[in-house]
Amino acid sequence: MNTHIFSELDHAHMRRALDLAWLGKYSTSPNPRVGCVIAHGEQIVGQGFHVRAGEPHAEVHAIRQAGEMARGATAYVTLEPCSHHGRTPPCAEGLLAAGMARVVAAMRDPNPLVAGQGLAKLAAAGVAVQCGLLETEARALNRGFLSRIERHRPFVSLKMAASLDGKTALSDGRSQWITGAAARLDVQHLRAQSCAVLTGISTVLADNPRLNVREINVLRQPIRVVLDSHFRLPEESALVQDGGATWVFVLANAPTRLAEYDNLRVFRQPENTLGKLDLHWVCETLAQNGVGEVLLEVGQTLATAFVQADLLDEIVYFQSPKILGDTARGVFRLPENGDILTREADWHTVSVETVGDDVKWVLQKR
Amino acid sequence: MNTHIFSELDHAHMRRALDLAWLGKYSTSPNPRVGCVIAHGEQIVGQGFHVRAGEPHAEVHAIRQAGEMARGATAYVTLEPCSHHGRTPPCAEGLLAAGMARVVAAMRDPNPLVAGQGLAKLAAAGVAVQCGLLETEARALNRGFLSRIERHRPFVSLKMAASLDGKTALSDGRSQWITGAAARLDVQHLRAQSCAVLTGISTVLADNPRLNVREINVLRQPIRVVLDSHFRLPEESALVQDGGATWVFVLANAPTRLAEYDNLRVFRQPENTLGKLDLHWVCETLAQNGVGEVLLEVGQTLATAFVQADLLDEIVYFQSPKILGDTARGVFRLPENGDILTREADWHTVSVETVGDDVKWVLQKR
Repeated sequence: MNTHIFSELDHAHMRRALDLAWLGKYSTSPNPRVGCVIAHGEQIVGQGFHVRAGEPHAEVHAIRQAGEMARGATAYVTLEPCSHHGRTPPCAEGLLAAGMARVVAAMRDPNPLVAGQGLAKLAAAGVAVQCGLLETEARALNRGFLSRIERHRPFVSLKMAASLDGKTALSDGRSQWITGAAARLDVQHLRAQSCAVLTGISTVLADNPRLNVREINVLRQPIRVVLDSHFRLPEESALVQDGGATWVFVLANAPTRLAEYDNLRVFRQPENTLGKLDLHWVCETLAQNGVGEVLLEVGQTLATAFVQADLLDEIVYFQSPKILGDTARGVFRLPENGDILTREADWHTVSVETVGDDVKWVLQKR
Repeated sequence: MNTHIFSELDHAHMRRALDLAWLGKYSTSPNPRVGCVIAHGEQIVGQGFHVRAGEPHAEVHAIRQAGEMARGATAYVTLEPCSHHGRTPPCAEGLLAAGMARVVAAMRDPNPLVAGQGLAKLAAAGVAVQCGLLETEARALNRGFLSRIERHRPFVSLKMAASLDGKTALSDGRSQWITGAAARLDVQHLRAQSCAVLTGISTVLADNPRLNVREINVLRQPIRVVLDSHFRLPEESALVQDGGATWVFVLANAPTRLAEYDNLRVFRQPENTLGKLDLHWVCETLAQNGVGEVLLEVGQTLATAFVQADLLDEIVYFQSPKILGDTARGVFRLPENGDILTREADWHTVSVETVGDDVKWVLQKR
């Protein structure tokens, strides 16, 4: 549908609904972030957002708040209201029961369980239904959810921290600290908004990281994902012992281990002839299991492998003004790509800003 | 003097004088950029800026414009008025003759020919004299001029263009184009505001660059400086043939050549035992010959040498979202510097912004 049919007031209410939806940025996974505003003209009578899976959807909060004032009103929702019975009743029915005269959705829900049926149900009951207002913004809100539904893989962000001269570690492997405290705090926010944080077994063996969200309050911790072909994850590692969810991706012939740890989930790759983990299989498996946004916190080898597999959607590049000098570790380890000089870059800059003493450069795949 | 003695109105007039001074950013070299505002309270009666060497100073334009209204007024100057007879008469005398009641200078002129004498002459004649208003801003205006007077070397900026993965050229040397058209236009502005653009003979032999300002109108072209130990500058090169000023720095034992070209000036290094050009001598010589701001457009070898000689004041780093892959050429070629991880960076970010598809990151030495 054409966006020209929407008034300035429609835009204002939908922007508010989007702002509300963003309040769930750290907590809704694996559900989408959704916001809802109910209004008569300028007068807002109800608003809500989805907080986390298992709790009421955005529409329910907004309808409750509006009460009798919902009758004859317009509901602005950032995602098509659901039409199926999940852990909560269908929102399309709730909007009908509340007596809504008009429903404006930013976008259809691509989830096959909905896929237009929510809006169709409302329209069939005589509600004026419109869709497509601020759709681009609504898609950005749920890039992970949409990716796993539409592409059957997560939205994959690579976090990198490098020096002015493009080095990620000294030749002895040390990298603490190339970037400053502000950049490291920013990474906590990146983790918090991800469904999962992925790393390689080499990083686990070298650093014993926790990969959880610290320094900011969260209702939900991201799942830790370890690519560990031969299942070498040490029993004493923080990822095993701290009780948080850890998913381990191993090869078909890897040993069976650590079955007594309830927080561990092992994904065994079907037989393949390559003798290494297939990153496409890893990504598909993550999506099938509800992971929408995944943050890669990996070393040069895995970063390079994801680039080569063309599985990266975003690079978040923290670059320090420090000059490290010549070391073994550059950002990637890729064959020379002379062709790139004569064509457009594969990546475009989404934003660049200073974070403390460092630069944070966000790039997305064209 | 203490800045607290200055009123908001004083600040406003001095800011205007600074803005005026910046109008000379491409043209005043080797003279400083200077602006002047003459006012009675809020009422501005005269203003001016220095355009280029040999033409009237900022104060002269402002006094002329004010005419009789200068009597009893306050003059705001971004640099102490000169007290010596140069190509133009001393401005301190001009301000006195115009009947100025008060003169506010942003900073003293460190030039030994002035060095407080301009303000002293005014004070001795009964003019109320104040100094130090917006001095930091006034110093930024003339960082090159101040560097050559105070440090006996130019303010040295290194322009770099690299890929996302920190590469400056393919292994075959090709680098056209890592960055885009907008970044290349920005480089034209960097050149225009520099007194000189410096490169190495390897770059001249490889690319036959002109290193002049194109695409923007300028009253003055920067001097081209070539570091050319053995004086291999080809007679047929653009730097020789286009008639623009080119300075060649050579070793003591280099051949004598190209004496018939009036646009060439050869600086021969006194005997030394190293058998290579001493970058400190190069910089001192440039300053002695009026070069205040120099822009380095050099390859990895010279960039590294300037870092190692601790002669860089600024890095202007254009970084492209293109990934070049592993090549021979990183940004620098420096020994590993593990120590830097545990201490503050030597550089701090002045600004970071997008320029077309590229990122422009300006860093200055702490």
